[in-house]
Amino acid sequence: MLKFEHPLTEKARIYLRVEALMGQLHKSASFEAPLDYQLFFRSLFDLLDLFEQIHIKSELTKDLEKQKLTFKNWVNVPGVDQAILNDVLNDIDDNFRCLMSAERLGQSLKDERFLSAIRQRFSLPGGTCCFDLPSLHYWLHLPLEKRLSDAKKWTDTLKPMNNALDLLLKLIREIGRYKPQVANNGFFQSEADEANILRLQVPLKRGVYPMISGHKNRFAIKFMNFETGMAYSQDVEFDLAIC
Amino acid sequence: MLKFEHPLTEKARIYLRVEALMGQLHKSASFEAPLDYQLFFRSLFDLLDLFEQIHIKSELTKDLEKQKLTFKNWVNVPGVDQAILNDVLNDIDDNFRCLMSAERLGQSLKDERFLSAIRQRFSLPGGTCCFDLPSLHYWLHLPLEKRLSDAKKWTDTLKPMNNALDLLLKLIREIGRYKPQVANNGFFQSEADEANILRLQVPLKRGVYPMISGHKNRFAIKFMNFETGMAYSQDVEFDLAIC
Repeated sequence: MLKFEHPLTEKARIYLRVEALMGQLHKSASFEAPLDYQLFFRSLFDLLDLFEQIHIKSELTKDLEKQKLTFKNWVNVPGVDQAILNDVLNDIDDNFRCLMSAERLGQSLKDERFLSAIRQRFSLPGGTCCFDLPSLHYWLHLPLEKRLSDAKKWTDTLKPMNNALDLLLKLIREIGRYKPQVANNGFFQSEADEANILRLQVPLKRGVYPMISGHKNRFAIKFMNFETGMAYSQDVEFDLAIC
Repeated sequence: MLKFEHPLTEKARIYLRVEALMGQLHKSASFEAPLDYQLFFRSLFDLLDLFEQIHIKSELTKDLEKQKLTFKNWVNVPGVDQAILNDVLNDIDDNFRCLMSAERLGQSLKDERFLSAIRQRFSLPGGTCCFDLPSLHYWLHLPLEKRLSDAKKWTDTLKPMNNALDLLLKLIREIGRYKPQVANNGFFQSEADEANILRLQVPLKRGVYPMISGHKNRFAIKFMNFETGMAYSQDVEFDLAIC
């Protein structure tokens, strides 16, 4: 089964991108492979770019507050496990507090001399050669211990945001349940109710991938044939969760 | 010892970038680590960007011809090992022929539907999410065998260029011999004679890296203190080869 996710709002799009970049950042931060640093710095600088596009910190706090209000409606409702509910509410509160007391997102990374010096050239094609970035070339020859502690120092500043985002996306994803659907002639459309994310499971053997368009109240899925790059014209069975 | 290289001409700058990107491409083409594909496609697309900046193929053929003329001057000169000389001349001829008969550099990669579809979004910050590039997401789930054969098909088209570039840079680098030098108060300048590349070896324990400016006939090296980011004001002993 191939899993796909698609954001239905601009904010969800940024959230998913930040989540993916944080994943790459953590996977490459061990510097096990000689070229891991490429992915590490690229992910870090991509994150700084995204932070300049929207105020993720204030958006996240607003969204956590919204979640809290929703979950509060279940307090003292018979049949709702109050212990679990309490855990969720505490989790939201903890993350909210951490996020509020955190620095302006990415500020210390932007102020870091070494990082800001290499950030400019990093996006040039082939711009990571030693003559473009001699200070990076020097840094790469420092003992692994020192590089790991630098990487930890940089990624630690993103932890409150990362934890809050992980919690929010977990709560959002838990809203939706996978249901079997059929895209007749490779096409499916439906309404949604203020949804944020679509999640799909598509059998790999079909040889298709979904092209999705839409917004929080309405969306359409068109399946494409990978081999031909054209629209797929047969029925496709898939699982869909609207979150 | 830290090794640095610095190009003294615009063409040498591109050659060194292409060499570095080809190295990254080959190291990541095994897709051993789950995120190797990131570096693979990034390097491939960076190469296509560079190929649009200069006509590497024609520049390489011109430079190989120049090398051939230089080496021909040594034919029948007493004391020159004619067998080795012959090998070099044959090597140049072989690479020249292969390069001449190769397709327009990067053309088949640009024409490939799958690659051109993902190339646009790849440079967006966080643009490699499954919702941005569903076809890439599908491709990543294909059997390793199929992905390796695709990667081989794509990189094979760059082989004639890659081999010719490797030979040319090898011949250029062999021109220079490392000689010990001292940068008084962290500064060194000198003249060069139609040189292409400077090569430096700097003791890592000094805590400095070189900032180099110049062109094929004259250059200056200023050593910077890595910790402070300021110019280093003490003497630095280093090895220099002018190639």
